[in-house]
Amino acid sequence: MLGNFTYHNATKLYFGADSLQYLNEELPKYGKTVQLIYGGGSIKKNGIYDEIIAILKANGKTIVEDSGVMPNPTADKLREGVKIARENHTDLLLAVGGGSCCDYAKAVSVSVHCEDDPWDKYYIRFEEPSCEIVPVGCVLTMAGTGSEMNGGAVITNHEAHLKIGHVFGDEVMPKFSILNPKFTMSLPKRQMVAGIYDIFNHICEQYFSGEDDNTSDYLAEALMKSVIHSSRIAVKNPEDYQARSNIMWSATWALNTLISRGKETDWMVHMLGQAVGALTDATHGMTLAAVSLPYYRYILPYGIPKFKRFATEVWGVDPAGKTDLQVAEEGLAALESWMRELGVSLNISELGANESMIEAIADATILLDGGYRQLDRAAVVEILKQSL
Amino acid sequence: MLGNFTYHNATKLYFGADSLQYLNEELPKYGKTVQLIYGGGSIKKNGIYDEIIAILKANGKTIVEDSGVMPNPTADKLREGVKIARENHTDLLLAVGGGSCCDYAKAVSVSVHCEDDPWDKYYIRFEEPSCEIVPVGCVLTMAGTGSEMNGGAVITNHEAHLKIGHVFGDEVMPKFSILNPKFTMSLPKRQMVAGIYDIFNHICEQYFSGEDDNTSDYLAEALMKSVIHSSRIAVKNPEDYQARSNIMWSATWALNTLISRGKETDWMVHMLGQAVGALTDATHGMTLAAVSLPYYRYILPYGIPKFKRFATEVWGVDPAGKTDLQVAEEGLAALESWMRELGVSLNISELGANESMIEAIADATILLDGGYRQLDRAAVVEILKQSL
Repeated sequence: MLGNFTYHNATKLYFGADSLQYLNEELPKYGKTVQLIYGGGSIKKNGIYDEIIAILKANGKTIVEDSGVMPNPTADKLREGVKIARENHTDLLLAVGGGSCCDYAKAVSVSVHCEDDPWDKYYIRFEEPSCEIVPVGCVLTMAGTGSEMNGGAVITNHEAHLKIGHVFGDEVMPKFSILNPKFTMSLPKRQMVAGIYDIFNHICEQYFSGEDDNTSDYLAEALMKSVIHSSRIAVKNPEDYQARSNIMWSATWALNTLISRGKETDWMVHMLGQAVGALTDATHGMTLAAVSLPYYRYILPYGIPKFKRFATEVWGVDPAGKTDLQVAEEGLAALESWMRELGVSLNISELGANESMIEAIADATILLDGGYRQLDRAAVVEILKQSL
Repeated sequence: MLGNFTYHNATKLYFGADSLQYLNEELPKYGKTVQLIYGGGSIKKNGIYDEIIAILKANGKTIVEDSGVMPNPTADKLREGVKIARENHTDLLLAVGGGSCCDYAKAVSVSVHCEDDPWDKYYIRFEEPSCEIVPVGCVLTMAGTGSEMNGGAVITNHEAHLKIGHVFGDEVMPKFSILNPKFTMSLPKRQMVAGIYDIFNHICEQYFSGEDDNTSDYLAEALMKSVIHSSRIAVKNPEDYQARSNIMWSATWALNTLISRGKETDWMVHMLGQAVGALTDATHGMTLAAVSLPYYRYILPYGIPKFKRFATEVWGVDPAGKTDLQVAEEGLAALESWMRELGVSLNISELGANESMIEAIADATILLDGGYRQLDRAAVVEILKQSL
């Protein structure tokens, strides 16, 4: 922990099979009008919608519907949500869904009382909120993004072929989040494994950077091992509550700023994956999976000590009689083998990308410099070709 | 993570060699009168006192001195601190020191505006705060107790031969804590290793309980490995900033509620150690060290799977060709070997206890039921005799 840093995360988490009841403790803290944010209506099929409406009504709230939040929420939808909040004088933005709904709620929260266009202000000019922020609460129905306990909000602009994340400060983090592992069980298996890979990659993005022997690295390895362990149970039996609950809890801690304290971070897999997502609208976790192995194999020669540690500490690779490079490569082989067990996408072709789109995806890829090798455009094109 | 639980920890942490300057960001949030809490005056020798006074004055604060907080703060001192706060209308309790000062500040914070005697209310009747709580901030100069990011406050009553901890809720946690690893470097080595063992035992107390394969267990193992790794560097070179900073950060996360989420906990080593402390006034971490091995050897037969996991995951014991019991015992042998490296107390005799005090220590030992074996009084006496 060599540098100076702050840690502040005040989101109150209610976790467990009975956690929805705690909405009754939170609602009285906020004003009368609740903007209920959700996606395509799956919460109406599985009964969560009815449960929440009943609790909102019992607490005397006026409910303003804001549905149709898509898996990759768009700038147009964001503008629509801001309009709804302004017209109804929303007091609380209550997101019910996965990371998309939570992200969207946060993006709305910082835009309601600002005059500027939110896309331009936060995703082009990367400004910080300069107006009152509407409080956000989340009821999580999918484990993956960690959005329930961080300030991140990814928004997609299809016209501009851009999918950009803005990580806001602690004042934008949800005031509370309700995490009920049972709510995640109605997800199709493909969505579950995409979420699991998203969690795992969040940890990798923070782990594969820097050189110091850091508490954050040990914590990252712990979360990786917990996710691997529980994912193997959940893939065989998605109804295993214990496995699903550990995955859900790990997801939150994988991206609530803890494991990045005192160290550098990478985030290039997300830059590549988000560029693929901007062009294909494919599921976020799948885009990350599809570019991960080509990317990590590309940077491995520049970060052998960490990739070796990854192999021995996370995957139990026995280093005896092997070169560091061999051990490091065995770690990535173990990662690939686990990804095949999960059934995540191992190439971008199956996500709708093809060779003719490579240049456009490269154009949409933001280059960061925290990883073991700074990519240039030619390297991005090379990695994307390897990902086809 | 089988049960229902909440997690809420809003303490803002400023970490690093330059972190004291952030006091300038926090002070304007509170009123004019700052009660400056510290111990025996070591902060006057190492310059921290002068630095803090300068910052308080630059922020226009009225400073009320509250010094002489002893390593095991007493009920009498607590009553004195409450009197100071009442007479001066304290707006912020600023603790500068180790866990004793932070604990004491929290105990004062919940007592200033309550009429009852604080020892009776919180440590005999175990009531919750029923009055306004004065905000607390900490500037930490010793890594160990985790008091900087939790609601715990241990107070000793020498007349009653009692040393009791009250774990208050999140509203009592410090509003901010400043963690500067350099401040911990002026500590004598004996205090450093006592703090290190305190950290390690906090993790053990939460780890050696329950049977589920839980994210919290993986995180506990990560913190243990980080502490072991960095302690070996720090014992050889106490000036190693990297090692001291990782120890400090691990201490905070070892006892800020994270690694106990979704699982049972033990805490019997603390009950035994605190009873030893109540009778001898010995250093907290040393009392824990002195009773740990006899206690863990006593309960091991009832928790073999977890002690085996401890051996293989934390200490790298090779289980090949061994019974589970043998592996488990090798884990405790590895723990003992590391404790000898640190140089912590391995018996209570050197802390001032003797056979004639065993019954009195047993009388002062609170029996909990979260561990792998519920102790009765005879077991406590047996463990204490083994600890002589």
